Amino acid sequence: MPADTVTIVGVGLLGGSIGLALRRGGLAHRVVGLGRERNRLQAAIDRGAIDIAETDPARAFADASIVVVCTPVACIAADVIQAAALAPTGCLITDVGSTKSTIVNRIESDAIAAARFVGAHPIAGSELNGVEHARADLFQNAVCVITRTPRTPSDQWERARAFWSALGCRPIEMSPDDHDAALARTSHLPHVAAAALARLVPQAWLELAGGAFRDTTRVAASDAALWTDIFLHNRAATLESLDALVETLSEFRNSLDQSDAAAIRSWWDTGRGHRAEFNRSQTRQNDDALSRTDPNS
Amino acid sequence: MPADTVTIVGVGLLGGSIGLALRRGGLAHRVVGLGRERNRLQAAIDRGAIDIAETDPARAFADASIVVVCTPVACIAADVIQAAALAPTGCLITDVGSTKSTIVNRIESDAIAAARFVGAHPIAGSELNGVEHARADLFQNAVCVITRTPRTPSDQWERARAFWSALGCRPIEMSPDDHDAALARTSHLPHVAAAALARLVPQAWLELAGGAFRDTTRVAASDAALWTDIFLHNRAATLESLDALVETLSEFRNSLDQSDAAAIRSWWDTGRGHRAEFNRSQTRQNDDALSRTDPNS
Repeated sequence: MPADTVTIVGVGLLGGSIGLALRRGGLAHRVVGLGRERNRLQAAIDRGAIDIAETDPARAFADASIVVVCTPVACIAADVIQAAALAPTGCLITDVGSTKSTIVNRIESDAIAAARFVGAHPIAGSELNGVEHARADLFQNAVCVITRTPRTPSDQWERARAFWSALGCRPIEMSPDDHDAALARTSHLPHVAAAALARLVPQAWLELAGGAFRDTTRVAASDAALWTDIFLHNRAATLESLDALVETLSEFRNSLDQSDAAAIRSWWDTGRGHRAEFNRSQTRQNDDALSRTDPNS
Repeated sequence: MPADTVTIVGVGLLGGSIGLALRRGGLAHRVVGLGRERNRLQAAIDRGAIDIAETDPARAFADASIVVVCTPVACIAADVIQAAALAPTGCLITDVGSTKSTIVNRIESDAIAAARFVGAHPIAGSELNGVEHARADLFQNAVCVITRTPRTPSDQWERARAFWSALGCRPIEMSPDDHDAALARTSHLPHVAAAALARLVPQAWLELAGGAFRDTTRVAASDAALWTDIFLHNRAATLESLDALVETLSEFRNSLDQSDAAAIRSWWDTGRGHRAEFNRSQTRQNDDALSRTDPNS
């Protein structure tokens, strides 16, 4: 059942991809984009990501049945609280933030926002920003964490799950803290490691860098301000992950220092096993997605 | 000018790709593959990577004008010394080892091998092994380090450069020690980091892993025995790189612990800058390659 009006706050890579998926799938009668820069909003209209561009929050939220906040993590809580104050009663507000605890805690301190908000994190994206990189299929088959706390309204939670499922996501329920602990390991730490590895190769040696460097450092191209905010938002879990990384590197270092081939192989094989399991889970998900979309199966 | 007989020792991903490139390019009258397992050699013949399969070194080297040793780093020096003892006078012997100092030092302690050997490392490959993954264009536009020491014969060095250039590589001269110091940073350390990051994500969280995890851990799928040997061969430089990694991670950790946003952004931007320079150098190399092959330019 299509939503009447969906308002997207921040029409970049993620917001733009949501707009494209909503419009191409006929999932909303009207998609409104709220932003600060007229030329970015015009790019979103040209790209087909939104029907209507607004720079005035009151107008953007006036008729919204669903609001999706796609601004940087440092802005999300304030944007949700503003949307809750301006949108009609019964409006669902959700977000795409890569961190959840700090955002959800702040929103739950506001009674009006708490009654309308369900936190989400669709695990999809890119080191590229901007609506020019938006894709209608960005969320297809992506896991979307949908957070639940004792204050989350159950009816809104179900609406959020239906919304993200309609965009093609596979919804998973988690608490904000569990989300942040897991994402520190699966995403935030790999970003730190990518930037660290890139820092260690001076320009003169870059021509000697091959596929391992290319792939391990790809996400080091991500935006500094966005990622600084993510690390600060998920500070405790990121610090814990860093300590775990230094500890496992130190274990490897000791084995190498002692030329202990068996210990190095065993250390390596644990990582290799996790990576193989990741490949298997990706294959299973793709197979599941194919069987869901194959009319003959 | 095609070589008469090129003998490839070890016909896996790299040896197989060399054979394919030699045969498709008409760069050798005959490509001989030396291996221990008949079925692997047959796979190389079926794949079109070699003309003749041999399991007997004396027969494999009898007519060789060029020998390329593509065995694991722990075997290369012994295989080169054996080839030098069995091949005709004037034969060039080169290799593909990911480490150079340990290999070159050991070979240079053998007078016959030293007179025929020029170390090489074409920077191309994959986490996949075996001749089934071999590609004739694997070396196209890849940098190939060709080592030179005071004992390297100049005429053989020129032949090695011509050989690797004919396969599509861009040759770069380096000392074995300089090679190993650079590759510790550009390749060996990223491999350790990939396995470390994979180790830190337990199975329950793998479904929350997205593109950052996928790319930073890709090379963790590499073979444990092969990489253990590489780390042991390049132990000093790998240990030094690990210390540098822990130091830069510790710098980031301190800034995050103090919630110092400006310091985090600045730390990040240095890595991002190196990565951007890597992207530019890759683009330049591709443009150069296109202009070399474009008959209109």
